[in-house]
Amino acid sequence: MADETTFSPAATALVVHELGQHFGERLSTNETLRRQHAHTLTWGENQPPDAVVFAQSAREVARVVTLCAAHGVPVVPYGTGTSLEGHVNAPHGGVCIDLSLMNRVVAVHAEDLDCVVEPGVTRKALNEHLRDTGLFFPIDPGADASLGGMISTRASGTNAVRYGTMKDNVLSLEVVTANGEIIRTARRAKKSSAGYDLTRLFVGAEGTLGVITQATLKLHSIPEAIAGGICPFPSVEAACNATIATIQSGIPVARIELLDALQVKAVNLYSKLGLAETPMLLLEFHGTQASVEEQSARFGEIAAEFAGGPFTWTVKPEERTRLWQARHDAYWSGLALRPGAKAVATDVCVPISRLADCVTQTQADIAKTGLVAPILGHVGDGNFHVTLLVDMDDPADITRAEGFLHRLVQRGLAMEGTCTGEHGIGQLKRKYMREEHGPGALALMGAIKTAFDPKGIMNPGKVLP
Amino acid sequence: MADETTFSPAATALVVHELGQHFGERLSTNETLRRQHAHTLTWGENQPPDAVVFAQSAREVARVVTLCAAHGVPVVPYGTGTSLEGHVNAPHGGVCIDLSLMNRVVAVHAEDLDCVVEPGVTRKALNEHLRDTGLFFPIDPGADASLGGMISTRASGTNAVRYGTMKDNVLSLEVVTANGEIIRTARRAKKSSAGYDLTRLFVGAEGTLGVITQATLKLHSIPEAIAGGICPFPSVEAACNATIATIQSGIPVARIELLDALQVKAVNLYSKLGLAETPMLLLEFHGTQASVEEQSARFGEIAAEFAGGPFTWTVKPEERTRLWQARHDAYWSGLALRPGAKAVATDVCVPISRLADCVTQTQADIAKTGLVAPILGHVGDGNFHVTLLVDMDDPADITRAEGFLHRLVQRGLAMEGTCTGEHGIGQLKRKYMREEHGPGALALMGAIKTAFDPKGIMNPGKVLP
Repeated sequence: MADETTFSPAATALVVHELGQHFGERLSTNETLRRQHAHTLTWGENQPPDAVVFAQSAREVARVVTLCAAHGVPVVPYGTGTSLEGHVNAPHGGVCIDLSLMNRVVAVHAEDLDCVVEPGVTRKALNEHLRDTGLFFPIDPGADASLGGMISTRASGTNAVRYGTMKDNVLSLEVVTANGEIIRTARRAKKSSAGYDLTRLFVGAEGTLGVITQATLKLHSIPEAIAGGICPFPSVEAACNATIATIQSGIPVARIELLDALQVKAVNLYSKLGLAETPMLLLEFHGTQASVEEQSARFGEIAAEFAGGPFTWTVKPEERTRLWQARHDAYWSGLALRPGAKAVATDVCVPISRLADCVTQTQADIAKTGLVAPILGHVGDGNFHVTLLVDMDDPADITRAEGFLHRLVQRGLAMEGTCTGEHGIGQLKRKYMREEHGPGALALMGAIKTAFDPKGIMNPGKVLP
Repeated sequence: MADETTFSPAATALVVHELGQHFGERLSTNETLRRQHAHTLTWGENQPPDAVVFAQSAREVARVVTLCAAHGVPVVPYGTGTSLEGHVNAPHGGVCIDLSLMNRVVAVHAEDLDCVVEPGVTRKALNEHLRDTGLFFPIDPGADASLGGMISTRASGTNAVRYGTMKDNVLSLEVVTANGEIIRTARRAKKSSAGYDLTRLFVGAEGTLGVITQATLKLHSIPEAIAGGICPFPSVEAACNATIATIQSGIPVARIELLDALQVKAVNLYSKLGLAETPMLLLEFHGTQASVEEQSARFGEIAAEFAGGPFTWTVKPEERTRLWQARHDAYWSGLALRPGAKAVATDVCVPISRLADCVTQTQADIAKTGLVAPILGHVGDGNFHVTLLVDMDDPADITRAEGFLHRLVQRGLAMEGTCTGEHGIGQLKRKYMREEHGPGALALMGAIKTAFDPKGIMNPGKVLP
């Protein structure tokens, strides 16, 4: 839909000129800066905006959007640029709104276990701010992304099996709508049955329905004790079955991550860990000292039932960090498997009962295609990542990778899964939206887009095909 | 918006006739039956539909909606009729679709901790069906409501503090849209970042955007052990502060319910329990034997810090039921406080830090107004209920009650709360939507309604003012 819209370079030039009058040095048309703002961690083409404006308040964002709306000029919200599917590219040019200066923690309500943040606050900055409160924000997508960006991509990560995804941890949003109005999606109460869930509609909308200018987020108590450990398994299937049994048994596992044998080999090479090069689960349990010890012991028993083990675990922070080093080094060790290659990260998510099949078939596909591609999974959610190491100077390699990515999505969809569990659609996965949702549901999404953004100016060329 | 629409009696008569040809005895125009289907547990006027049709499949629902859409006739979906704010009334007449015959549990995926149900399955029927699986569905709004209705009102209840509300426990929906199309809102994967969250948009939409014909729900493991207990407190404030401290300390309390002194007095009278007539918390902890014992002991210590106690608790099922009898008898005991009166149940929800204030001010209001109205709270969520015992033959009593209800909502909104935590908007709370959400957010809700249901046929006169 958005792609049918034509945008006028003259209108954009006019808007950029007017914004320059108002924002002065906080507006830039410098090409390097513009290209940085279109830069994404994907292999997509760099499509820079015409200008980047650094907003400092919701009112400033509203001013930019109002002007862009008046002239039909695209608006691309920007947090830290760590998204993976081309979310911040500007295929139609327009104005990029950089929200990194809106980085205040506005309020922490310790009694209510919530906080109010501006969208440019990163997750690490928030947790640093919360240091003395006994509270933390659990969602951890890997990168130190901005919270606005994490909301917009419905991010999750290693803790989601216990604490949910961004969808579950946003109480309310302040949003600048496509006509430049500032609205609030909900009250600060922990739950409500008062009308349509606007909050969840903006979570995961990737900036295509409005610009998030403030968020009220749920916080959680820092657990009194954390146990962490690692456990080798003879096969991916055994590891997945042990994961299913663990969750079914009601153990409130906080993290449960799978590394496939190639990924373990990579960290062995990179970090000299000397681990057995078989599939491995890394786990974390949160609770009281007694309860995390009980949970760890029980997991060890379950692992043994599936021929896994030994489960090596500890409650000591420094030893836990050492045991989890394989996970922390996963990305860089993967890159080192093929020096000079670029890492293309992708994700799918399937019902957990299909996960072992999906990972095993994917490994076979990788082997058959001749790719180098370690696998890493948030297995408690049925979500896994493949890191493709691609030689960008070799068109044949790129073609192989593209074919693989396509088959991976097809495989996930065939197993009642989704084409992305946590990375989002951006530009690159739009082509799967129809197959995933069907024409009727997709038409409803299009109807929402048209209702919220009739001129199609909000992050055009994303999400909807 | 919907109220501006005019519906044609002739069109309705035509549709009812045509549906009669197809549905035979599964369509009824019997007045008693029609009035039963408009009956709600509120003091709202009974506004019956023109006909009730008992659908047996999504295709049948689609047939009804398609016909109604063609002729601009209202459609009112109906589950068990236990909603509280006039959700199933038919102020514009039209066709009520009774979904009680669509009561099959379509699938249970034990490994994935999910199940697929038709909308007429009640929560108790689902849990009965799950009996041998070790799994359960936790949401418990009190009434044995249909799951379709619980989804539509975004229901929650006593377990929500631990297991979330319906919003958190629906993976995917099959919906008949306002043009009679059957769509699916999401895949069965546990999480997804693929596009707009249509699922959460239909959750809580009260049938105004479409008719839910199937739902994929999350299930949870039945805990190995459950501890339950009761704890008196010197004041509502002490009970609320102990609740806050409990949640802050990270104790994963499964249920934490407040009865105010009047409610305790009511259960003493009704069930001869001999409890101290002070505010009381009832708690439940889910986990292993060791962990629920640890949680119970810790709560006892916290309660003592706030001058509460003794905390009487047990892990034995029959004793637990006895301790919790005060909670189970709350509704009927409340009615017995004023024989012949009708119970009008209402709810608001505020940030938990404001809960003690809100409850205390509400008690003072009740006393000043001269009402009989016990209070019951899901205090872990900041949500509480007032049961007004109203003499429906006394206009002055009704006026007093109406004034109180209005002030209660105003009080909740002034404390950053919502006019309803779990009952929904229906007809009776529409007048608070503008104040709660503001004109901009309300306009977005209106835009969604118009986009999804341009003819305004889906449950008109509900949710939006």
